[in-house]
Amino acid sequence: MAGVPVAIIMGSQSDWATMRHAAETLDALGIPHDARIVSAHRTPDRLVAFAKGAKAEGFQVVIAGAGGAAHLPGMTAAMTPLPVFGVPVESKSLSGQDSLLSIVQMPAGIPVGTLAIGRAGAVNAALLAAAVLALHDKGLAERLDAWRRRQSESVAERPVGEA
Amino acid sequence: MAGVPVAIIMGSQSDWATMRHAAETLDALGIPHDARIVSAHRTPDRLVAFAKGAKAEGFQVVIAGAGGAAHLPGMTAAMTPLPVFGVPVESKSLSGQDSLLSIVQMPAGIPVGTLAIGRAGAVNAALLAAAVLALHDKGLAERLDAWRRRQSESVAERPVGEA
Amino acid sequence: MAGVPVAIIMGSQSDWATMRHAAETLDALGIPHDARIVSAHRTPDRLVAFAKGAKAEGFQVVIAGAGGAAHLPGMTAAMTPLPVFGVPVESKSLSGQDSLLSIVQMPAGIPVGTLAIGRAGAVNAALLAAAVLALHDKGLAERLDAWRRRQSESVAERPVGEA
Amino acid sequence: MAGVPVAIIMGSQSDWATMRHAAETLDALGIPHDARIVSAHRTPDRLVAFAKGAKAEGFQVVIAGAGGAAHLPGMTAAMTPLPVFGVPVESKSLSGQDSLLSIVQMPAGIPVGTLAIGRAGAVNAALLAAAVLALHDKGLAERLDAWRRRQSESVAERPVGEA
Amino acid sequence: MAGVPVAIIMGSQSDWATMRHAAETLDALGIPHDARIVSAHRTPDRLVAFAKGAKAEGFQVVIAGAGGAAHLPGMTAAMTPLPVFGVPVESKSLSGQDSLLSIVQMPAGIPVGTLAIGRAGAVNAALLAAAVLALHDKGLAERLDAWRRRQSESVAERPVGEA
Amino acid sequence: MAGVPVAIIMGSQSDWATMRHAAETLDALGIPHDARIVSAHRTPDRLVAFAKGAKAEGFQVVIAGAGGAAHLPGMTAAMTPLPVFGVPVESKSLSGQDSLLSIVQMPAGIPVGTLAIGRAGAVNAALLAAAVLALHDKGLAERLDAWRRRQSESVAERPVGEA
Amino acid sequence: MAGVPVAIIMGSQSDWATMRHAAETLDALGIPHDARIVSAHRTPDRLVAFAKGAKAEGFQVVIAGAGGAAHLPGMTAAMTPLPVFGVPVESKSLSGQDSLLSIVQMPAGIPVGTLAIGRAGAVNAALLAAAVLALHDKGLAERLDAWRRRQSESVAERPVGEA
Amino acid sequence: MAGVPVAIIMGSQSDWATMRHAAETLDALGIPHDARIVSAHRTPDRLVAFAKGAKAEGFQVVIAGAGGAAHLPGMTAAMTPLPVFGVPVESKSLSGQDSLLSIVQMPAGIPVGTLAIGRAGAVNAALLAAAVLALHDKGLAERLDAWRRRQSESVAERPVGEA
Repeated sequence: MAGVPVAIIMGSQSDWATMRHAAETLDALGIPHDARIVSAHRTPDRLVAFAKGAKAEGFQVVIAGAGGAAHLPGMTAAMTPLPVFGVPVESKSLSGQDSLLSIVQMPAGIPVGTLAIGRAGAVNAALLAAAVLALHDKGLAERLDAWRRRQSESVAERPVGEA
Repeated sequence: MAGVPVAIIMGSQSDWATMRHAAETLDALGIPHDARIVSAHRTPDRLVAFAKGAKAEGFQVVIAGAGGAAHLPGMTAAMTPLPVFGVPVESKSLSGQDSLLSIVQMPAGIPVGTLAIGRAGAVNAALLAAAVLALHDKGLAERLDAWRRRQSESVAERPVGEA
Repeated sequence: MAGVPVAIIMGSQSDWATMRHAAETLDALGIPHDARIVSAHRTPDRLVAFAKGAKAEGFQVVIAGAGGAAHLPGMTAAMTPLPVFGVPVESKSLSGQDSLLSIVQMPAGIPVGTLAIGRAGAVNAALLAAAVLALHDKGLAERLDAWRRRQSESVAERPVGEA
Repeated sequence: MAGVPVAIIMGSQSDWATMRHAAETLDALGIPHDARIVSAHRTPDRLVAFAKGAKAEGFQVVIAGAGGAAHLPGMTAAMTPLPVFGVPVESKSLSGQDSLLSIVQMPAGIPVGTLAIGRAGAVNAALLAAAVLALHDKGLAERLDAWRRRQSESVAERPVGEA
Repeated sequence: MAGVPVAIIMGSQSDWATMRHAAETLDALGIPHDARIVSAHRTPDRLVAFAKGAKAEGFQVVIAGAGGAAHLPGMTAAMTPLPVFGVPVESKSLSGQDSLLSIVQMPAGIPVGTLAIGRAGAVNAALLAAAVLALHDKGLAERLDAWRRRQSESVAERPVGEA
Repeated sequence: MAGVPVAIIMGSQSDWATMRHAAETLDALGIPHDARIVSAHRTPDRLVAFAKGAKAEGFQVVIAGAGGAAHLPGMTAAMTPLPVFGVPVESKSLSGQDSLLSIVQMPAGIPVGTLAIGRAGAVNAALLAAAVLALHDKGLAERLDAWRRRQSESVAERPVGEA
Repeated sequence: MAGVPVAIIMGSQSDWATMRHAAETLDALGIPHDARIVSAHRTPDRLVAFAKGAKAEGFQVVIAGAGGAAHLPGMTAAMTPLPVFGVPVESKSLSGQDSLLSIVQMPAGIPVGTLAIGRAGAVNAALLAAAVLALHDKGLAERLDAWRRRQSESVAERPVGEA
Repeated sequence: MAGVPVAIIMGSQSDWATMRHAAETLDALGIPHDARIVSAHRTPDRLVAFAKGAKAEGFQVVIAGAGGAAHLPGMTAAMTPLPVFGVPVESKSLSGQDSLLSIVQMPAGIPVGTLAIGRAGAVNAALLAAAVLALHDKGLAERLDAWRRRQSESVAERPVGEA
């Protein structure tokens, strides 16, 4: 299976401040990816075209970030058999509680694997995509293991600033 | 402008228990309507076809009810210039708080006029549709006025059961 | 039907920071409007006078913004047959959750079509008003279509800042 | 100051199941009261007439119960100088959280003294009204003291059912 | 009934930033008041002494402000027959939602008339106290009426900044 | 240190349905305890007497359960140096969210170790009291270890009902 | 890669009522699975053993369901490189809001793909696992496509009960 | 029982800004303590080693602070018989509501005594640890009494800034 394995889509330019953390994490793991703006509400045709064509484009995982009434992840999942991971972007008034519920509370039949609100969720969407791809990519599995090991090792024993 | 003016769409059969109150209210006001199941997640093609064709079908107002990660009203609004009114159907775990936020928190650019959670919202979506249609339908305006007057008159002065 | 079609009312001067986005959106669509301060709590007589007279003044749609225990949209809807669209203004302590619930949870009988909290809601109230007016105004329908098309076209393919 | 000192108003017949506890508590304290249905939304004229006339009718305190987008207490307070105590009636979907916020989050300038959601709030609205009236009614002050003393004495030392 | 009619108590110095708005509003209405720090948790003896002696000190109304697990209003109400009005002070993490619920959700038997979170609530506690005192103070009733009239008159017709 | 080591107090008889689970858990661990009704609001004198005398009575840990505006745990903690563990009893309208926040959000200076809402919290308050007492009671430490071991061992490997 | 590809773990027997829907969905898609009770809190050793050994056991995806302070999915994800999908089981007092937040709000570094609260989440965890496995299993991909097609086709055009 | 009696553990360096208040409070009471970073998610082995060895290391009380999906306190409690007190660290998007629920809503069987969100909780965790230790340490009991007395005495009678 060649091609770019991960698509990162988001509802608007302003979501990039969050979603670039997914891109950077994929970069750190050596996973090619393609980042696009696909607005479920403002560009529904682009959404349909993207979602229906995602598998044929060679993507294996879709990471979708959106805020507020966040319909992008769920609507993408409705039109592709690929696994879709959703990132609730922090919203202005409700701090992403609306984004979270709009993404995670999908009805039985169409799943979206939802990550945490904001930056942590974007990083973790990339790591979850990596875990999926690593099932059939030994090199990646090793890079992911190494990444996790370094993460563990980087945790200091004691807090800096403690007397 | 002939034809059926109001479409009532809902995400699943189970939403009908709520949405039939919209239908009954339209009936009471003599407004023809057409009720359909359109699942944003399970039948995305039907959603696209319905939303893009709604104006050409002669509808003037769309009432859309859905629960949980309720994407139907917003996605419909993304693909039709008609006014869309959303009814958050009460969900099992979160009592419709997820439905409400998924419907009302639309981003700037694509509006959904959202009503209350559950039965009251369904009745009121019909009344709001009627108010819109009554702007150019004198007969309906009079029927709506009469309906509201009767509603006012039906409020008893004192609670039954009071000693 | 001549006259100014849209009234924008709000509970206080401080709501204007939000509601001016409704006014600007109506301006962009060439829809005349009239913006007034009507406080349900501090000027109840003005509220009654406005709401009861709104239709006679020639308004076709009322956009009402308020925050906290936001009674303005619902009380206006109680006294006019015109469609009322409510905008929950972001409140200081509860970020507009109180405003949202106070506006959207109307009992069966008196509808308020509620938009999102804050600026997005104000923009969308204007767009929803436009959708209603466009049902019987071909020129406006075309301007609204063009506005929506421009909105779609303005969505970039890729996020700026992506390497 | 003669006349009936306490008005109990509520938005609908269904609120009586809650508000009758206010009436019963007033009865227990020997305080005359008058219970009426006044719907802010369905009978706005009745609301205006009641609120503007409440002082002239001889009422000294108004107890107002309502649920959902509960505008009755606040709108009454906007049109009477009398103290208004609000009781959030438990709503179907949101358990009275909407009622509570709609009543308590009044803007500076128009106060509503808000009690707990449901039956406890109704009882307490009556007790608060009694505390206000007792400031200038020695007999009532003594009855209220006795009531509170009996309440204290009725609290058992140990839970029944404890081995 | 001579003496200072209103006590303003609060849980800590930091609450004064909120509660001074109650004091200033009472000043504007010419109502003497006495502001004290009474911490339910850090000075429980002072709380007991204050609450039990409040009536004998000549107070007629107690305004109590507190934040977080706000026990001051309810515990005061448990030990005085005077009407107690509670002001939820905005808390750091939960924006006063904890303060509000801790104050308003009193069990049947001991009422606290609760106002809005923060400054608005402090102002309104003063206005509610004034409404209570005005029942037997014609001069104050007139000053309160005038205050409310000025408040109504000070609401501009149109938002400043509107073109 | 002789005497009964654990006091279980609760705001009302109705809390016993929850708090008896604390008593039963203490029984299972062979820890003497004393269960009393102490209402912060209806019996404030009893509260003061209990809290101030708890240490002298020989108690080492206080378990306090209450619902709604739950002031009992915090007010007890304000008047005793003993560790106080609070159990939020499930409330009718808000499912114990009010109870939880009223107990856990104590200001710096007076701690209440708060457990989960309802039965689980009552059981765990007993277990936490046991853990504290076991620090200086080898026999109890062994009984607690055995109890925890049995708990681990009682967890089946596979769900019953699985084909 | 032979062996059973999907592990379904849950915190207690009572979670099976929810998690069996994951098992049944996997059955419907012909995906072997193994369901076990692994309590993060009551059997932490079993958790460590399971999570560390899951990959070696041949599992490719872990579905983990838990309620309340639901630590099972996150702790499993901390100790396995396999993708972990979490199902928030509906809790008694807080309807699964605690379960949802405890599962979804993972810090950057350890992802859990979270599904909806309750039955829908369990079904969808299975479908998401299927989507992952189908990336390298053509037969499954076809069965999943067929399942989704049947799902779409089973959505009736009109609600039953509509006149 | 010699050794350092209190362990303060936290999920990451960033939690120290909150947890240092626990350390400082213990310092003020002359209680030795040991502060460590133990990430449940990034260093699960360290967590297991710490929790299983905490009693043998001589600790008597564990204070654990964490934010978001805060699993550290509960997982520690699952592997030590020592009393564990949890401090919900304020999270970015949800202000610590996720932290609070993830810590406090433990299932029956494994208790975590939970304190308030943020700094107040950290201070109080230290005071609660002190209360536990003081049960068998007269000197500490006296220091704690003195600390509480000073705290009471430091509460001013009147707010500074009051005219």
